[in-house]
Amino acid sequence: MTASAARNRSPERLEAFSDGVFSIAITLLVLNIRIPSGPELLSSDALIGALGSAWPSYLGYVVSFVSIGIIWANHHNLFRLVGRVDHWLLLANLFLLLCVGLVPFTTALLASTIAGPAQQVGVLVYAGSFVAIAVAFNVLWKRARLVLRADADPAAVEAINRSYRLGIPGYLAAFVAAIFSPALSLAIIIGLVILYVLPSSSGA
Amino acid sequence: MTASAARNRSPERLEAFSDGVFSIAITLLVLNIRIPSGPELLSSDALIGALGSAWPSYLGYVVSFVSIGIIWANHHNLFRLVGRVDHWLLLANLFLLLCVGLVPFTTALLASTIAGPAQQVGVLVYAGSFVAIAVAFNVLWKRARLVLRADADPAAVEAINRSYRLGIPGYLAAFVAAIFSPALSLAIIIGLVILYVLPSSSGA
Amino acid sequence: MTASAARNRSPERLEAFSDGVFSIAITLLVLNIRIPSGPELLSSDALIGALGSAWPSYLGYVVSFVSIGIIWANHHNLFRLVGRVDHWLLLANLFLLLCVGLVPFTTALLASTIAGPAQQVGVLVYAGSFVAIAVAFNVLWKRARLVLRADADPAAVEAINRSYRLGIPGYLAAFVAAIFSPALSLAIIIGLVILYVLPSSSGA
Amino acid sequence: MTASAARNRSPERLEAFSDGVFSIAITLLVLNIRIPSGPELLSSDALIGALGSAWPSYLGYVVSFVSIGIIWANHHNLFRLVGRVDHWLLLANLFLLLCVGLVPFTTALLASTIAGPAQQVGVLVYAGSFVAIAVAFNVLWKRARLVLRADADPAAVEAINRSYRLGIPGYLAAFVAAIFSPALSLAIIIGLVILYVLPSSSGA
Repeated sequence: MTASAARNRSPERLEAFSDGVFSIAITLLVLNIRIPSGPELLSSDALIGALGSAWPSYLGYVVSFVSIGIIWANHHNLFRLVGRVDHWLLLANLFLLLCVGLVPFTTALLASTIAGPAQQVGVLVYAGSFVAIAVAFNVLWKRARLVLRADADPAAVEAINRSYRLGIPGYLAAFVAAIFSPALSLAIIIGLVILYVLPSSSGA
Repeated sequence: MTASAARNRSPERLEAFSDGVFSIAITLLVLNIRIPSGPELLSSDALIGALGSAWPSYLGYVVSFVSIGIIWANHHNLFRLVGRVDHWLLLANLFLLLCVGLVPFTTALLASTIAGPAQQVGVLVYAGSFVAIAVAFNVLWKRARLVLRADADPAAVEAINRSYRLGIPGYLAAFVAAIFSPALSLAIIIGLVILYVLPSSSGA
Repeated sequence: MTASAARNRSPERLEAFSDGVFSIAITLLVLNIRIPSGPELLSSDALIGALGSAWPSYLGYVVSFVSIGIIWANHHNLFRLVGRVDHWLLLANLFLLLCVGLVPFTTALLASTIAGPAQQVGVLVYAGSFVAIAVAFNVLWKRARLVLRADADPAAVEAINRSYRLGIPGYLAAFVAAIFSPALSLAIIIGLVILYVLPSSSGA
Repeated sequence: MTASAARNRSPERLEAFSDGVFSIAITLLVLNIRIPSGPELLSSDALIGALGSAWPSYLGYVVSFVSIGIIWANHHNLFRLVGRVDHWLLLANLFLLLCVGLVPFTTALLASTIAGPAQQVGVLVYAGSFVAIAVAFNVLWKRARLVLRADADPAAVEAINRSYRLGIPGYLAAFVAAIFSPALSLAIIIGLVILYVLPSSSGA
């Protein structure tokens, strides 16, 4: 990556590459839902039991799917304001993608552990991955503010400022809560997802 | 997702992200076709037998592939009429993607169960996933009608109205039929796929 | 898919969706190369032996990767001449994608069988998938010729005519040859790949 | 691929296809991180132990993720200078994609071997895949220089010249070093990643 070649780069292809990573990560989540096999297929009752006991993977699928959907929307909102992509913005974006790319793993770990004795570790890792994503978004935004479009709407900039302020303390609270109560930690994560899914109250 | 930043968003990047999810979900279907292994590879006859007995996975591949292809085409037709993407349209689209993302799982479950004693459960889940997709499309369209382009062709709008009217009752009929006869349920699903694949009779 | 909504559709989003399927199918090929495990990792010699004995999966990876690459290039060349996408073109394209989506499976089957007693079946299925793709391309092209751009270069149209003439008989020859000699069949398939990779002699 | 049809082809769709392959290859890397199972889930301590002992897969994930990210950025920089895509450029690009598509495999092999007796083979294969990618980039650039845009910035061309000069000798050094010391080889690879991640000192 040479600095001179990187000058004056517009964000279109960076967005396309990032959209590819987001859409693949979100679609890979389904691979974590195990297909019942063997004796679980020998009767309707056995299969219903097997499907029912897989609830942690459905929960993980929904929470992670919506979370990556929100991440995509936030990424989209952020880059609509960016005028040009420089070297450090590209690196900050790569760091964000690296964290998001781990979500299929942390989701699978959460689903494997949530109903068992190692629940706490699974929730800590899951919450930790969202702390990392929140940090990555704040680093990306800090850098992006230096290369905003000249015509970037100040209200949109301020809305992102407000929106990102919540991420790190929120997910950090979920991480710390997991030490005392994994259930509380998950409740905080789900609460944050719902909060981000709601339209912001500050919007007109 | 902040309401102010979401204002005036055009659908291009939403379509690109959705296309990514559709094309990955459709391509992941092939992973459900098991590669024969071990003793099945020890003679041509054994391999032919193994490949032949895997017919449920070929059937599932074809039905789900064509279904997702139709979903993509419908999504494309719908968004060609949309002028701007607001918060609720984005959420409705995410709900649709969440349902479509499950199809590789429900297809695998169908293929695993269709020739065995738990057939009914497999067909119920498969039909249920298409009921959910039909509901998601109707929710999406209800919202999209509020943000249509000023120059949206009324005939195209009416064609979508007609086309979507069939989805929920059709797949619901397949779901209910599965309680009495899984074979009838599958026949209804395949019939709906063929119906959607045919050019609409109302077209010039 | 309603005929009226489908009128006047330009090929951009169809190409994007198809590119998604091609790029995912081509990248999934790597999942067929098995990672050595267990005793194969206990010494450098054992690992070299395991990697060496996996040559069929490398061969399959290269032949299928280049084949899908050629399919993508042909698809791109074809759609550059297309003015609008109608219902039947969309269906013909979906049939092509359905066949290409199977290549990761047929490649895995080829690699699993090529060095064993069920070799013939594996080669027949592999050659058969390319016959299906060649048929799909000819169907697609037959339909595309009805909706060409007004300014489509006649030399480009003629070049595609010539290029597609070879596909069906070529891959059919490979399919038939597999009945007598799987090795000859593979040689024909590799020969066709090389022929398509070479620049056409008719080009200026 | 016919030469006449290939004339005057602009690089947009080639970039979209390549971006698809890069984003899928980078996202598939996460599948190499094994989800702990069975007895590893029976206590927090056991799970922490299992997650800790999987450090080679985290290392592989990070090094390969950042490497593919750099490859994407370099590919983007290169094609921004290209005016038209001819047959040989398309082939050179396909060869690059074929090599990049192998990285999820070579990364998995590295992670499987790095803490065991077959470490050297794993590092040789991993370094070898980057030698192949560096060769592919140089072939691609050699060809691309013949079809540059008329307005390509000479400073950007020179920056790529300088940047690519390092790749082959650098990764070849890592490959040769693996014969004597796998640890040194990995250190060289990580050093090259860091060097490429830093903004080039020659940039203004």
